[in-house]
Amino acid sequence: MSSTLPPALEDLIQELSRLPGVGPKTAQRLAFHVLRLGPERAQALAGAIQAVTERIGYCDRCHNLAEEALCAICAAPRRDQSVICVVESPIHLLAIERTGEYRGLYFVLHGVLSPIDGIGPDELRVKELMTRLSDGAVTELILATDPNLEGEATATYLARLVKPLGVRVTRPASGLPVGGDLEYADEVTLGRAFQGRRMLDV
Amino acid sequence: MSSTLPPALEDLIQELSRLPGVGPKTAQRLAFHVLRLGPERAQALAGAIQAVTERIGYCDRCHNLAEEALCAICAAPRRDQSVICVVESPIHLLAIERTGEYRGLYFVLHGVLSPIDGIGPDELRVKELMTRLSDGAVTELILATDPNLEGEATATYLARLVKPLGVRVTRPASGLPVGGDLEYADEVTLGRAFQGRRMLDV
Repeated sequence: MSSTLPPALEDLIQELSRLPGVGPKTAQRLAFHVLRLGPERAQALAGAIQAVTERIGYCDRCHNLAEEALCAICAAPRRDQSVICVVESPIHLLAIERTGEYRGLYFVLHGVLSPIDGIGPDELRVKELMTRLSDGAVTELILATDPNLEGEATATYLARLVKPLGVRVTRPASGLPVGGDLEYADEVTLGRAFQGRRMLDV
Repeated sequence: MSSTLPPALEDLIQELSRLPGVGPKTAQRLAFHVLRLGPERAQALAGAIQAVTERIGYCDRCHNLAEEALCAICAAPRRDQSVICVVESPIHLLAIERTGEYRGLYFVLHGVLSPIDGIGPDELRVKELMTRLSDGAVTELILATDPNLEGEATATYLARLVKPLGVRVTRPASGLPVGGDLEYADEVTLGRAFQGRRMLDV
């Protein structure tokens, strides 16, 4: 089978399948798509891939992706400088930005505590977070790690660590997804939804 | 929202979303994956993309993808030179190769007749196919276009065109997918399966 494909195409499939979450079938499909782009657009794609790893680093202040010393959010004058939302990764940050509900700053941990994978506080940006909080300008820290085992453990760990600083520490509500069906919610989520029930102002 | 991403990443998402079948969400996911590859692997990926469009052209004989004048299949001495299987695209060719059932040669049309999209015989490699058949060495032509409206129409068109040459023209069987459930087969497929029923040698 492999001998029927031109070597350059084999190479591309090989490289594409190194992307996390891209299996051999997807890699093959993508490679054929690239071939169909034509030289000009393929060149542009190759250039964009190079540029991305050459130009993008981390924000000095919040460790979000940035091309400059500060990321677009830290550099924005309009953001609320007194609230920091701690997230696991830049992609989580993006999901929160998309809601349009949050106007504060962020701090990207680049992972969560996971003893099984050998990831302790030193593997995350925990020290950097403590330094970031040391100037006293921040009054609330929202711990928006995932609502799963590692995420909860990381949030608890950070909450304890931050406690002496006197900063208000919060966590996004857990509960039923909007548009979801109560019947199909898992017990833990449903339990959390009841614990976190709110008064209806009618 | 868009202002929160570094421009280089936005560019990459833009380029990736030009790939057919890649929506904005997939493009974003892929771009973040590329970022995580690190400079060395990202460089290799960019290089592979460039190489693919620079090096790969079409086989002079069958119009399959090729880096040389002839593709790997046309250049292979062991393939049966008397049978040609006509396919819509190199990816269809690959699917047939994967079965390991076929030892003949191919001819890639690069599309199917589709009057609605303005694709007539001149937009396909029909003239090239007739030239390919003119030497009289081919005794069977398998028309393996898709078993859908355009594929059937293309097969019928080619069969009529080739008829004067006296070449045996065949088409792969339509029927129930192996491992499929008769109950869930659509009527047309089930009807074809009955029309094409075979004697059981027991």
